Amino acid sequence: MCNICLIEGVKAHMLSRRSLFSGAAVTAAAGLAAGALSARPALAQASGRVVDLTHAYDSDFPTFDGQPGILYETDKDFEPDGYHLFKLTIFEHTGTHIDAPLHFSQGGTSVDALPVENLIAPLCVVDISDRAAEDPNAMVEPADIEAWISAHGAIPEGACIAMHSGWSARIGDPSWRNLPDGTMAFPGFSRAATDLLAEAGAGSIGVDTMSLDPGNSADFAVHYAWLPSGRFGIEGLANLDQLPASGATIFIGAPKHRGGTGGPARVMALV
Amino acid sequence: MCNICLIEGVKAHMLSRRSLFSGAAVTAAAGLAAGALSARPALAQASGRVVDLTHAYDSDFPTFDGQPGILYETDKDFEPDGYHLFKLTIFEHTGTHIDAPLHFSQGGTSVDALPVENLIAPLCVVDISDRAAEDPNAMVEPADIEAWISAHGAIPEGACIAMHSGWSARIGDPSWRNLPDGTMAFPGFSRAATDLLAEAGAGSIGVDTMSLDPGNSADFAVHYAWLPSGRFGIEGLANLDQLPASGATIFIGAPKHRGGTGGPARVMALV
Repeated sequence: MCNICLIEGVKAHMLSRRSLFSGAAVTAAAGLAAGALSARPALAQASGRVVDLTHAYDSDFPTFDGQPGILYETDKDFEPDGYHLFKLTIFEHTGTHIDAPLHFSQGGTSVDALPVENLIAPLCVVDISDRAAEDPNAMVEPADIEAWISAHGAIPEGACIAMHSGWSARIGDPSWRNLPDGTMAFPGFSRAATDLLAEAGAGSIGVDTMSLDPGNSADFAVHYAWLPSGRFGIEGLANLDQLPASGATIFIGAPKHRGGTGGPARVMALV
Repeated sequence: MCNICLIEGVKAHMLSRRSLFSGAAVTAAAGLAAGALSARPALAQASGRVVDLTHAYDSDFPTFDGQPGILYETDKDFEPDGYHLFKLTIFEHTGTHIDAPLHFSQGGTSVDALPVENLIAPLCVVDISDRAAEDPNAMVEPADIEAWISAHGAIPEGACIAMHSGWSARIGDPSWRNLPDGTMAFPGFSRAATDLLAEAGAGSIGVDTMSLDPGNSADFAVHYAWLPSGRFGIEGLANLDQLPASGATIFIGAPKHRGGTGGPARVMALV
């Protein structure tokens, strides 16, 4: 399916669901004052606890293609140079990292051009860990989003919606990526859920696994719909179990190399 | 001078100046509740304006050694791969980036191990742009810190102190790095000023130039004192002219590759 067909599909789906999200739609239509921050109410009440949502990574960190995502070479050392500096080879999509629209769309927004207002955002945590413990390819479904809205109110404009599947605790274990038979398996979003989130005005999605789509995805349906819509994703989040479902603010330290398709990011939350 | 001598020198200097900073010292001694954030008061009053303190960078971005700091190689492309991904070669200290203690101290803290509480911090902007317009190797001096404290109160515990020299506006022009004769020249901190900041409880320093030390430094005195003390620096900040001297909060998206000496960072401020 071409990108235009995908986008049209998203639009059609959005229209059909619009009544569900009338509250959020009104908020989005009313807009925010230029430069105002939708995370402001949460920040004003923050306790001051910082949670690091970023895994430390090196060449052992699991990657989609199974090859090391970063390589180190000493470029300067204390002897004889007097200081220390590495030359790094980095494959952009490794560690806790950003998927910019350009990663899955010709001419899409590159990582340096993401709107800075979307990099500090309200964080909505959708917990599917019980289901994921039973099904390693579990997905965030529309019902999970609807349940979150019922419990916590409308999705704030520009929010980041993070899937908490419990996968972060598996880092360092082969089950983070694969079933015992070597088949790739991990939770992700369903296309239907991300279509609803686009309609609701979300700015980004995040996962505590290796991919926005589940491990058994044959078509990368979420990558091919969410990213071409101009939104971005975060893969490999850590410590989502330390956050409330609603009320935290996420700081997304996206890299800013010009024209990049994404890359390792420092992501933190303030509770 | 060895690192131990340098640290002893800092300590001696700190003791001699302690009376100047009794207010800050008392705050530091009283400590903060575990995990509490010293930026909390500013965040509670934030207007919600986000200022991006990060330059977009590519292989043309000026570097200390004059060589490209980042190189791109297409690793995957839409044809035939269906998506887009770069393999990057990055020399850690390029673009808007972190200097971790390990950069200038054997066994010092690496960039992945910086305390996360110091990555969201009160931001103090020290403006020396008038002086820097006359002297391209101007330095933040103790008198500048003392003037800031007189105007705005004690340096908050863990704060980031940023030098605003006006250099950010020169990006893309040779004068960002060099005099017309090719000699390196840009503003930086003086060792005496950073000794005072260590005493006052600052957590990090930042500059809108290529180095914590000024361009004509022969000994990297600030690098060899500040970083071995366990604190970190940020080089190449942008847009400091859009911030108040006091009251903003800085979000320092330091990279988290294990054992790194620093690296490109996404840095933002909330006003």
